[in-house]
Amino acid sequence: MGDKQVRIGMIGYKFMGKAHSHAYRDLPFFFDLPLVPVMQAISGRDEDGVHTAAQKMGWASHESDWRKLIQRDDIDAIDIVTPNHLHAEIAIAALEAGKHVLCEKPLSVNVEDAKRMLAAAHKSGKVHMICHNYRFSPAVQFAKKLIREGRLGRIYHFRGLYLQDWLMDPDSPLEWRMRKEQSGSGAHGDLASHMIDLARFLVGDIAEVVGTMETFIGARPLPDQEAPEEITEMGEVDVDDASAFIVKFKNGAIGTFEATRFAGGNRNGNRFEINGERGSIRWDLESLNVLEVYLKDDEAGLQGFRNITCTESEHPYGNVYWAPGHNIGYEHTFLGLIREFLNGIATSRCPQPSFADGLQNQMVLEAVEKSSQSRQWVSVE
Amino acid sequence: MGDKQVRIGMIGYKFMGKAHSHAYRDLPFFFDLPLVPVMQAISGRDEDGVHTAAQKMGWASHESDWRKLIQRDDIDAIDIVTPNHLHAEIAIAALEAGKHVLCEKPLSVNVEDAKRMLAAAHKSGKVHMICHNYRFSPAVQFAKKLIREGRLGRIYHFRGLYLQDWLMDPDSPLEWRMRKEQSGSGAHGDLASHMIDLARFLVGDIAEVVGTMETFIGARPLPDQEAPEEITEMGEVDVDDASAFIVKFKNGAIGTFEATRFAGGNRNGNRFEINGERGSIRWDLESLNVLEVYLKDDEAGLQGFRNITCTESEHPYGNVYWAPGHNIGYEHTFLGLIREFLNGIATSRCPQPSFADGLQNQMVLEAVEKSSQSRQWVSVE
Amino acid sequence: MGDKQVRIGMIGYKFMGKAHSHAYRDLPFFFDLPLVPVMQAISGRDEDGVHTAAQKMGWASHESDWRKLIQRDDIDAIDIVTPNHLHAEIAIAALEAGKHVLCEKPLSVNVEDAKRMLAAAHKSGKVHMICHNYRFSPAVQFAKKLIREGRLGRIYHFRGLYLQDWLMDPDSPLEWRMRKEQSGSGAHGDLASHMIDLARFLVGDIAEVVGTMETFIGARPLPDQEAPEEITEMGEVDVDDASAFIVKFKNGAIGTFEATRFAGGNRNGNRFEINGERGSIRWDLESLNVLEVYLKDDEAGLQGFRNITCTESEHPYGNVYWAPGHNIGYEHTFLGLIREFLNGIATSRCPQPSFADGLQNQMVLEAVEKSSQSRQWVSVE
Amino acid sequence: MGDKQVRIGMIGYKFMGKAHSHAYRDLPFFFDLPLVPVMQAISGRDEDGVHTAAQKMGWASHESDWRKLIQRDDIDAIDIVTPNHLHAEIAIAALEAGKHVLCEKPLSVNVEDAKRMLAAAHKSGKVHMICHNYRFSPAVQFAKKLIREGRLGRIYHFRGLYLQDWLMDPDSPLEWRMRKEQSGSGAHGDLASHMIDLARFLVGDIAEVVGTMETFIGARPLPDQEAPEEITEMGEVDVDDASAFIVKFKNGAIGTFEATRFAGGNRNGNRFEINGERGSIRWDLESLNVLEVYLKDDEAGLQGFRNITCTESEHPYGNVYWAPGHNIGYEHTFLGLIREFLNGIATSRCPQPSFADGLQNQMVLEAVEKSSQSRQWVSVE
Repeated sequence: MGDKQVRIGMIGYKFMGKAHSHAYRDLPFFFDLPLVPVMQAISGRDEDGVHTAAQKMGWASHESDWRKLIQRDDIDAIDIVTPNHLHAEIAIAALEAGKHVLCEKPLSVNVEDAKRMLAAAHKSGKVHMICHNYRFSPAVQFAKKLIREGRLGRIYHFRGLYLQDWLMDPDSPLEWRMRKEQSGSGAHGDLASHMIDLARFLVGDIAEVVGTMETFIGARPLPDQEAPEEITEMGEVDVDDASAFIVKFKNGAIGTFEATRFAGGNRNGNRFEINGERGSIRWDLESLNVLEVYLKDDEAGLQGFRNITCTESEHPYGNVYWAPGHNIGYEHTFLGLIREFLNGIATSRCPQPSFADGLQNQMVLEAVEKSSQSRQWVSVE
Repeated sequence: MGDKQVRIGMIGYKFMGKAHSHAYRDLPFFFDLPLVPVMQAISGRDEDGVHTAAQKMGWASHESDWRKLIQRDDIDAIDIVTPNHLHAEIAIAALEAGKHVLCEKPLSVNVEDAKRMLAAAHKSGKVHMICHNYRFSPAVQFAKKLIREGRLGRIYHFRGLYLQDWLMDPDSPLEWRMRKEQSGSGAHGDLASHMIDLARFLVGDIAEVVGTMETFIGARPLPDQEAPEEITEMGEVDVDDASAFIVKFKNGAIGTFEATRFAGGNRNGNRFEINGERGSIRWDLESLNVLEVYLKDDEAGLQGFRNITCTESEHPYGNVYWAPGHNIGYEHTFLGLIREFLNGIATSRCPQPSFADGLQNQMVLEAVEKSSQSRQWVSVE
Repeated sequence: MGDKQVRIGMIGYKFMGKAHSHAYRDLPFFFDLPLVPVMQAISGRDEDGVHTAAQKMGWASHESDWRKLIQRDDIDAIDIVTPNHLHAEIAIAALEAGKHVLCEKPLSVNVEDAKRMLAAAHKSGKVHMICHNYRFSPAVQFAKKLIREGRLGRIYHFRGLYLQDWLMDPDSPLEWRMRKEQSGSGAHGDLASHMIDLARFLVGDIAEVVGTMETFIGARPLPDQEAPEEITEMGEVDVDDASAFIVKFKNGAIGTFEATRFAGGNRNGNRFEINGERGSIRWDLESLNVLEVYLKDDEAGLQGFRNITCTESEHPYGNVYWAPGHNIGYEHTFLGLIREFLNGIATSRCPQPSFADGLQNQMVLEAVEKSSQSRQWVSVE
Repeated sequence: MGDKQVRIGMIGYKFMGKAHSHAYRDLPFFFDLPLVPVMQAISGRDEDGVHTAAQKMGWASHESDWRKLIQRDDIDAIDIVTPNHLHAEIAIAALEAGKHVLCEKPLSVNVEDAKRMLAAAHKSGKVHMICHNYRFSPAVQFAKKLIREGRLGRIYHFRGLYLQDWLMDPDSPLEWRMRKEQSGSGAHGDLASHMIDLARFLVGDIAEVVGTMETFIGARPLPDQEAPEEITEMGEVDVDDASAFIVKFKNGAIGTFEATRFAGGNRNGNRFEINGERGSIRWDLESLNVLEVYLKDDEAGLQGFRNITCTESEHPYGNVYWAPGHNIGYEHTFLGLIREFLNGIATSRCPQPSFADGLQNQMVLEAVEKSSQSRQWVSVE
């Protein structure tokens, strides 16, 4: 284990903050790291909240103004886990302050911001990364290996779903994820962005899209700050509850995508299937250790999807975590990602997915939004 | 068991002819029918082939010219299982000859023909039906019952896949299903039409569509009639290998559809999921007895998809076939459908799906074709 | 299709009678048979019931006394689907009358009767068969092929379950299946006998057993013939509700078996897994077209159970029924079995499973009963 | 988060040591603990190995003699993760030294040692616990809750499997797990002990057993310490490769158990099903977040196993880890267990499973061993 360290400052501390914090703590246990992360400081506007969170999650200090945090000399890298509309401003300021930056997805609320972020990253020469953690599931990494080795041959189809159901209750109050100004979009940026990243990682770049974005419940109760139980006013939902789109990849494959928060019974159904000329694969986040693999060249009569639990020594991270058949959970996807971030800082090479990937992703998201308005196919720039 | 009969003449005798023939034979064993089908005659151009088929499948006589068949006085109803481009001519002639008509799907190769068929049906006053057999899986019938009773509430999503893989080999020769003139389209009319029927049956009519149709392998070997082993020429594939489209239902639900013959490992993957405000259902033809049902009002902590094998006395056909947990197979979907056809003839009421449904279906298929060309949303008339 | 026929007389006509009748009707449609079965006559004590059943199921005539049936000159083979305690008397009489005999399982209610039945069969020189239909699921036949070819290597484990739940209601009335005199045993003879047959078919003969038989509900309402709604008396259940036993096969493998009617939610859960030195297989009647296959020599990293739908041309019956991915149901297991019976008659060679298999099966059943009493291991003779 | 601490000394540091160490590190992140564990010291005979392990896993110091460790004043509790034959000596010494003790399973290599351990625990008045971690899977805890609330009613069946395949290669060398002196037994103590604990936890105490223990490969290569590649000698395997047994619970339920290292394709298949008069449940370690639940009182026609992902706020630990549908992995079972250990120390109340549970477990294990020799049913004392 190296003695060298990288001092992290994290901005935001809710659900994603918890997932990132856990990863920083857990990483040195499993991996030999070139740089050991030091949980230096977090920031949040609510002084009490951020203080408690720092203690609970193991951060050495805290700030109630993120601007102070990024100016601190004792911090090398900034991790942004705020609502989406703050990403651009914080990331650019952090890069300008000479910090490496890890940013939650989606990169921003529009393409313009994403471009400015990438430009700032290039100008700074610092390491930049976007947090599409599902790439780092061992099964997805193994899928990538199979595809890279040509085991699926030419790809014909990508078919992705991200189905959730936490917003189906019409009495569920309006929060930042349902306001365009703060989130950019609804299920689209939150869920479809993950699928787009997986599709780009595994299949390649997307040339054009057509699709639709739907809002099933157009108004929701506004939480009354004084008396949250008393709903007196309704607020407009100006983001999508669901998006569905079809894409053409640059390599000729076609893709279908659907993201929704209105698919009852699907708590966190992030799934894809890829069909190639020599084989197919399937993955489902709710069974994240498993990759289903079909190989066309299997002996006739013995052809079928194989149920492969990616915990063997031949699989990515197979010797790092536990043992064959000993499953890992959701949180490990962040370990894989942040390890790449640390490796990138150590070697001064930008890891993937970078802000460039984030921009590409945002361009696909925005092309779908445009298509939803123009009602026709839209090129991804 | 009634003494009354309906005498059937079937035109065509390949795979679908086998499935229909089996159903005619099997129906009286399971059901008390108002009219017992008599397998009177089949027709086919190849005299030897049709003779052998008649003997093998139990038809009393055969013809090598379908025009003769529909003129025979000893035939009450015509069952059409030919390639698609013949449906219109045969159906119209049969209706004009005063026969009831059951026609395989898709109803025709274009909307114009479908309209002529429906007009002829209306003019004739005879019973007309299109063979979308999957409606008659007990699990799908049970799904319909749940939806009709409001158990799913308002429907938000229909998500359908029909994935096959039998055409992935580029050396697979050109046959009628790959020629537009004979089949109208490829995976689209063959597979998507089934999904459209299920979606219309369960969710309702479709208002508009956007989508694409792709041909992955543009040329295939032409079988040499003299020496089929020697491939000397290639022929153009002018139909789609895959189609993907998004729809808006008239009731506000959105739907996604994908039909392909290039999804390796999916031999016959006809699947759908429907999400409503009170619950969700899933069905998969490869496990056709099972309906997965999620009910939002289930006790908290005990919510999850239930795996229901639809073989109980509470399920459609539950007391007709075997016993709880004793699965039925593919062939039974035809029994359910043809029983409706016979009931329709007995009661002079047109059963569903009728030619009107076939026309609606064709209109959706054609709207997708138009969208694939115009690259924008297209209304379904 | 051959012109030669074999004329069948069936004794009994309830659930199993329906399954057998359907198979006789359905066989000529799918198979080229050396002998075509003619549904000549059925018998049953209830004149009205047997008359209706004959008409409904397509039998040409009926008798109310099985003794008359077996004496008829126009009958070549007897099919016994009565309660278990009648098997021996009927089978022996039928063999003595020069008929071929197909008998439902279990062969008898005790080993002594089974021995007399086998002796009568040998003496008669006629074809004899026991109806263990699950052997003839395409997936089970394919499993047999894999094992015969050595694809699993030396077998270590057989693990069988037959779980049902139809008898869990304590108010469910006493019927013949719960009376030792008529059924011999409960879940044991009814369900475990099927597993024993599958185990013997796939793994080999059983050397010794240890086990237990349990009755969870010791008394049940006696149906009042006059007023079935009024339960005035309770009757003793003198058979098992469940049996569980461990076996050693002659080849050194060990086996575990559990049969029960008290496994809620398992309507018809007949499942097994076999582990050998080179691979493993799994089968489940509730998904009867599928064989899960694990091959130890698969490439490292790509090892996992393959989900194989046994409907390909490489699979048993693959070209007989429908097409890849088009599942068959429960009823087809009887077609495969009765076809063997007909082949046996045509070739004068006794097919398997024969009465000799039925006797071996009965010996295992009885050894478990003895073990349940003696509370120690018992050799299978 | 409390300021109070409990200082841990761990003896052994291989696979289980890694799992325990991770839990100590991870616990304070997720839980508000009454006592915070301090990773004070580990011991191991290999000075280099233990030094590296201490650094890697985060232990403050290390010893090469466990006797020194348990005498250290700066240690409050001892965690034993050594091979089985050392458990008794270490645990007793630690208890005598006034330490709380957490011991890996099985408690010992025989009942006699287990009794001495329990006696020492009682005499010491210290907290004692055995590490059956699978009890602490959220889904298993939820199963316990359902059973405790009577949701399954009277229990009829427990059916447990623990299937692995890591020892199937005959060239796999002899190690301590295959030597009776060091491990007590093979698959039996290693795997069956886990099932016995789950069965006792969920169903209740076991009255009597009958079973068998098998060794499929009787001799294995002895690793040559000098040149491990050169196998010159074979050593006898004197433990079981597999055990299978049937039990009667004191409450009248029956249970079947099978543990094996020879079930190809089952990397870590720890599964059970429980059937009661009102419902059934199923669990599988390879899908550890899911509990399948069948409720007999569900509406007719809608009955089926529900697939419940136990990550909701209504589930045990539901608010502690991530969010609905965000799965946890194997390692979390240790968090739940060690948290109980810490709670026990904080409250001076012995948590379950205690050494008393370990002794009961050992008594069942030994009764099976005796039955395997005597070939008859054996009472559990």
